[in-house]
Amino acid sequence: MEYRQLDTHTVVDYIRELPEMQKIFSSFDRLDIEEVGDGNLNFVFLITNQDNPDETVVLKQAVPFLRVVGEAWPLSRDRMKHEVMALEFQEDECPGLVPEVYHSSEDMSLVIMQNLKNHAIIRGEIIKGKVFPKLADDISTFLARTLFHSSDLALGHDVKKEKVRQTINIELCKITEDFVFTHPFEDNETNEYNEALPQEAIDIIQRDPKVRAAVAEMKYAFMTRAEALLHGDLHIGSIMANEEETYIIDPEFSFYGPMGFDLGAMIGNLFLSYFSHDYRQRQMGRDPVEYRRWLLECAEQTWTGFERKFLDLWRAHDEKVENPFMGADLDGASAEMFRQQFMKQIFSDMIGFAACKMMRRIVGLAKVADIADIDDLQERAKAEENVLRMGSEMVLRRKEFSSFADLFDLAVSISPLSGSR
Amino acid sequence: MEYRQLDTHTVVDYIRELPEMQKIFSSFDRLDIEEVGDGNLNFVFLITNQDNPDETVVLKQAVPFLRVVGEAWPLSRDRMKHEVMALEFQEDECPGLVPEVYHSSEDMSLVIMQNLKNHAIIRGEIIKGKVFPKLADDISTFLARTLFHSSDLALGHDVKKEKVRQTINIELCKITEDFVFTHPFEDNETNEYNEALPQEAIDIIQRDPKVRAAVAEMKYAFMTRAEALLHGDLHIGSIMANEEETYIIDPEFSFYGPMGFDLGAMIGNLFLSYFSHDYRQRQMGRDPVEYRRWLLECAEQTWTGFERKFLDLWRAHDEKVENPFMGADLDGASAEMFRQQFMKQIFSDMIGFAACKMMRRIVGLAKVADIADIDDLQERAKAEENVLRMGSEMVLRRKEFSSFADLFDLAVSISPLSGSR
Repeated sequence: MEYRQLDTHTVVDYIRELPEMQKIFSSFDRLDIEEVGDGNLNFVFLITNQDNPDETVVLKQAVPFLRVVGEAWPLSRDRMKHEVMALEFQEDECPGLVPEVYHSSEDMSLVIMQNLKNHAIIRGEIIKGKVFPKLADDISTFLARTLFHSSDLALGHDVKKEKVRQTINIELCKITEDFVFTHPFEDNETNEYNEALPQEAIDIIQRDPKVRAAVAEMKYAFMTRAEALLHGDLHIGSIMANEEETYIIDPEFSFYGPMGFDLGAMIGNLFLSYFSHDYRQRQMGRDPVEYRRWLLECAEQTWTGFERKFLDLWRAHDEKVENPFMGADLDGASAEMFRQQFMKQIFSDMIGFAACKMMRRIVGLAKVADIADIDDLQERAKAEENVLRMGSEMVLRRKEFSSFADLFDLAVSISPLSGSR
Repeated sequence: MEYRQLDTHTVVDYIRELPEMQKIFSSFDRLDIEEVGDGNLNFVFLITNQDNPDETVVLKQAVPFLRVVGEAWPLSRDRMKHEVMALEFQEDECPGLVPEVYHSSEDMSLVIMQNLKNHAIIRGEIIKGKVFPKLADDISTFLARTLFHSSDLALGHDVKKEKVRQTINIELCKITEDFVFTHPFEDNETNEYNEALPQEAIDIIQRDPKVRAAVAEMKYAFMTRAEALLHGDLHIGSIMANEEETYIIDPEFSFYGPMGFDLGAMIGNLFLSYFSHDYRQRQMGRDPVEYRRWLLECAEQTWTGFERKFLDLWRAHDEKVENPFMGADLDGASAEMFRQQFMKQIFSDMIGFAACKMMRRIVGLAKVADIADIDDLQERAKAEENVLRMGSEMVLRRKEFSSFADLFDLAVSISPLSGSR
């Protein structure tokens, strides 16, 4: 089938012909079609049978340009291929944590999947101060399973290398390379600064050679270390949840990269929220302690849950297979020592990547609403300064933190749980 | 053209038809054909016009099995594709340091190239105690140019990722993964031990959890870090030289891997020779000091030459381009700090990889003649013990050595320049 861009009218004719859709929709006569692509890249249609709202799907289609800019910024539709590959792998590993895929077409650069109508993007909810009791547990499960089972620790050497080959994602990695690891730190013209943010705060991340060198090391790690099939963009805008369930969406940035990158994206976003809720909780007339503690605990439990589950998978795998990654453990202590050192490396990587992702959200082009939507520019600048302090400390000292408690303490030392006044 | 395996008869008919060969040979009537493939993998024909010995080429053809074992060990002919890709890249970067390629055919899995008839494989010469005055300078040039110019520091993000994709080398990497990083350390049935080598010496590398974990980290780095297009098997059996010229041959193991791996292969081989020449120099009735010092200095100059040349290339590149890897250097000190930290990482990687390559040559299947051909098994075992001590110290402390002088001193502390008696 030749590619054509669907709109709210043509989408009905398209799905009507698909056997998978004929199973879901009892009729195509009275479909409600809503285009909700709030992202920068794609078109997203919610399709619902007006006569039976349970008959509903999401259709996501890539267009051959960057939607937020328009046709002037060409971007190949390959990203949908990467999204589908990642979704299928993640669904195999973590059913119930990613939307179910009903249909995909490489020609049409689209995927049709489960409509998560009872779930919300959690960024907006976290801004409002909502607690997600299962978030850390679900995300750590997702990360442990996807990262372990796509790695050289679990896969055959040949299978893994073929997957690396297939998932090389040139265009979307370039966006991360530029907008996460480069532009924010070089005063690039694409940067956007809160006018109330003092230059000295910006200089910490743009003119301190130690910070700049550390960030460059993280960029190099991002570009060279093909460890596992990452989600690639696991911020809290890529998670939909309610109190019972968590879904991870939008893996078009997926590629083989360093395990710490996905982990860092997640905890970095929770730290960003932490610094925003100094002001936000006060604004809501609440005592900031409880919610801000939840945010830090959620970050901590994401890491500790991941570590435990990843190690469990690894130990179980090594017991089962004939040829574990490091070979036979003749003394009975070697395998465990390797595992502990391995987790230490992921831990410091996570901290370094989290730091880059936090700092870039302050001065780079793409902001997070948690902080950027604070109307009071002085309050916003205070949160931003705290993020830049935390981020720069994290990337510099990433190999020195001995446990998550040290990170927790660092956040609290920069901005006490009870808020700054 | 359909693949067929050439022999000393059919090879003449094959080359006779090639325009490139018609330029080299004035006549195909009296060709001298010699099959000299002493390696484990391929067939190698020396082809020379008996009437004019200057008209001479080498034809190397891959067969669809591991030659040393036979058809029972299938091995795809893809390795020739990797060899040709690597040779062409290396020739672009380092003309005069690799054999000139006259013709290659993917269908036939062969390459026809310059016959280095005035050069010898240096392993045999080094065993005899020959000095190669230009070796360190040439090898460090080769490494600096090939590693820098295939890296993310030099190439466009998209060009580099396409090269990574093309050069994934599943089968030959597997040989390294097994025979360099796994089997020697797990008492695998493929291992071969000198009967005079004490079990305690072997246990140092097979039953010390710290050594085992460190080796596993190097294996993981080998399998995940796509930094530069490596030669992949740069031991002193892959180098042909005389006093004036140096050629690097046989890059079929080429793939995108960690830069320290090629460096480590080279210096590891020089350390192996160093330990062998305790006995060998005495056997030749020489004072061991001079030659053994040359071996260590050659290793040292390989590193220091590489470091200087790599940094020169990098600085010149960054001055020339608009977008250096780390972005604009706003404070004037960031780029240099990143470079220094980067070199430190390559240095410790080199030491770790050298260590693995040294240790595996003692207990693994593939030996080096420098040591394995010492007839006196007690003398051989002494050299082997020294290698295992040096290798285990190197991999354990690879991040602690502050300069090559520390490595030099470690070698001398294990076996003094003047020899052990």
